[in-house]
Amino acid sequence: MKICIVDTTFARIDMARYAIEVLQNLMPDAVIVRRTVPGIKDIPVEIKTLMQREGCEAGMVFGWVGRSLVDKISYAVYSLALQLVQLELGRHIIDVTVHEDESESEEELYRIAADRARKHAENLYLLLRRPEELVRRAGTGRRQGYPDAGPIMGGYG
Amino acid sequence: MKICIVDTTFARIDMARYAIEVLQNLMPDAVIVRRTVPGIKDIPVEIKTLMQREGCEAGMVFGWVGRSLVDKISYAVYSLALQLVQLELGRHIIDVTVHEDESESEEELYRIAADRARKHAENLYLLLRRPEELVRRAGTGRRQGYPDAGPIMGGYG
Amino acid sequence: MKICIVDTTFARIDMARYAIEVLQNLMPDAVIVRRTVPGIKDIPVEIKTLMQREGCEAGMVFGWVGRSLVDKISYAVYSLALQLVQLELGRHIIDVTVHEDESESEEELYRIAADRARKHAENLYLLLRRPEELVRRAGTGRRQGYPDAGPIMGGYG
Amino acid sequence: MKICIVDTTFARIDMARYAIEVLQNLMPDAVIVRRTVPGIKDIPVEIKTLMQREGCEAGMVFGWVGRSLVDKISYAVYSLALQLVQLELGRHIIDVTVHEDESESEEELYRIAADRARKHAENLYLLLRRPEELVRRAGTGRRQGYPDAGPIMGGYG
Amino acid sequence: MKICIVDTTFARIDMARYAIEVLQNLMPDAVIVRRTVPGIKDIPVEIKTLMQREGCEAGMVFGWVGRSLVDKISYAVYSLALQLVQLELGRHIIDVTVHEDESESEEELYRIAADRARKHAENLYLLLRRPEELVRRAGTGRRQGYPDAGPIMGGYG
Repeated sequence: MKICIVDTTFARIDMARYAIEVLQNLMPDAVIVRRTVPGIKDIPVEIKTLMQREGCEAGMVFGWVGRSLVDKISYAVYSLALQLVQLELGRHIIDVTVHEDESESEEELYRIAADRARKHAENLYLLLRRPEELVRRAGTGRRQGYPDAGPIMGGYG
Repeated sequence: MKICIVDTTFARIDMARYAIEVLQNLMPDAVIVRRTVPGIKDIPVEIKTLMQREGCEAGMVFGWVGRSLVDKISYAVYSLALQLVQLELGRHIIDVTVHEDESESEEELYRIAADRARKHAENLYLLLRRPEELVRRAGTGRRQGYPDAGPIMGGYG
Repeated sequence: MKICIVDTTFARIDMARYAIEVLQNLMPDAVIVRRTVPGIKDIPVEIKTLMQREGCEAGMVFGWVGRSLVDKISYAVYSLALQLVQLELGRHIIDVTVHEDESESEEELYRIAADRARKHAENLYLLLRRPEELVRRAGTGRRQGYPDAGPIMGGYG
Repeated sequence: MKICIVDTTFARIDMARYAIEVLQNLMPDAVIVRRTVPGIKDIPVEIKTLMQREGCEAGMVFGWVGRSLVDKISYAVYSLALQLVQLELGRHIIDVTVHEDESESEEELYRIAADRARKHAENLYLLLRRPEELVRRAGTGRRQGYPDAGPIMGGYG
Repeated sequence: MKICIVDTTFARIDMARYAIEVLQNLMPDAVIVRRTVPGIKDIPVEIKTLMQREGCEAGMVFGWVGRSLVDKISYAVYSLALQLVQLELGRHIIDVTVHEDESESEEELYRIAADRARKHAENLYLLLRRPEELVRRAGTGRRQGYPDAGPIMGGYG
């Protein structure tokens, strides 16, 4: 099985590294193909053509988004393009994005980014190999980059 | 008849459970196929490929959206991708989304989520089996998650 | 000639009724096919498959949109999906939408909705049967739901 | 050569008139085909089917957009749909849009609208017949509806 | 190898010039095909048809965006259309956009524009000829138009 990964030189943290570690642990048989592009707007065409050329079963992409309105517009466009690629290929592409305004602290941003990359790598593993475990986790408030929010318990009133 | 359901581990309430109860009551003959993905951006490709693979006549998806601008952007992208899937498949996919900022109270969020899931399950039943009943309800201000707003009566001036 | 109509149970006014009256007056030969769905996000796939199945030459859809940001996002998504359907079918689908924040008064909302539905039904008739009359009205500031704004006269300076 | 034009009855100024004058002056051999629709959301399907049916080499569309958030959403949707039409047809469709909030003065709006229509008609001529002239004007800050902003000169520092 | 370039007469700086210099230095064998259109909304169809007609292996486009909400909407639409073109062609189109509100100073805008054009030309070269160098730069916080932000170092806590 092949997994395609695309990240950027714009990002300030090498998130893919953390994801690759997890993927190799959980799926030692997986072959990982990695490319890097300048920014998020270059990712969709790269991941699409890479997955087609390499025959990847799934993808992971790593984005980094600034604080301004224009940055958020770019994120929206990027995110929609990723949807189009997934729908055309009929394959999952897990999107790991960190927004610079998630924290004022570089230390905290680093922690968020590494945690998000690792947990989403695990999510990709579950999607590919253990979908029944995801069903067991339905509605349980899992988070990536932050502690889980946890489920809201019913039985009120 | 088969109905495909996709929800998330991000959601804090297992909404699909309530919908499935209603669907099984109203359409005991329906076969329900359920998958769970990490977050809403993973839903469109999952519901599309699931419906194609399983031959589902209709779909239901359950999303949970946070309070931030980025969350709302993700919701917009998700929502548009769901439109694309529906248009391509020519099949209804009922979208049950709860936004965390609908209430400050977890108890109230729970109530909204369960009610919305149940009522939209009934809506799906009506779409599939009793479309004439929906026409009878046209313009009557039905709500899911909240009490019906009801019709605005004419005959003014 | 067949015209397809889709409206919602979410709407608080049965706008389609007013449009159908006008259409039947202006085009007594037209056959009208009507369906109702829960909310605006269910309209695009319904109008598309209905028009294809019934061979409708044109469509009319009736939406009702709340006041919140999420409501406006849903409207944007809905509106774009309607564009995609029209472009794919190569047929007009006239969109009659009322936004709850157009007025604080239910009486006024009712007036807006009925007027908009009627005038857009006339517009559909003109598109289908008297396109030259629309050209005569180019740039004349016509409004639906409100009094016409009228043309801005040239000849300044 | 044929050029297709679509405008609206919603617009308060007959902008197409000014564009047609310029087009006929600059390309006396061009055949102009004109249609009018109610509002901007009706333009994309009309210009697409018109250009296909008439075999137009290029298009011009004339929109008028109000001040509200909903108006701006409609503009965004309209604008994106025009992109889709152009990409599908592989032909330019010049978009002349006036926003009512460009000026408080009707006189000024009129001036903006007529100037924008005329200058964009000239732009269409340059695209079709003199592309090398456009390259000569690259980065020179041309405006339509307003005076040219002009180039920012280099050689700093 | 051919590279297609499209810019605008709306832009106030001839950014393409700086990019072409860099491209010719780094890839003396590359043939550059350049067109200019009025504004950013005219770029997607131009770059698409140009790349198809000329058989360009990659593209560069140069946009200039004003300060208003309408300008940002146009940018979003433009940016999404560029995604669609890239996905359809399966080729990179590097987008060099300058927003007028990036600086109050024309001198600074000029510096941003020239630097961004040059650095993105180098990026295109790396994408086409030295993809392994881009992987080496993954997560290093490269910027175009501004000094590099640099990587955030790990090893915290």
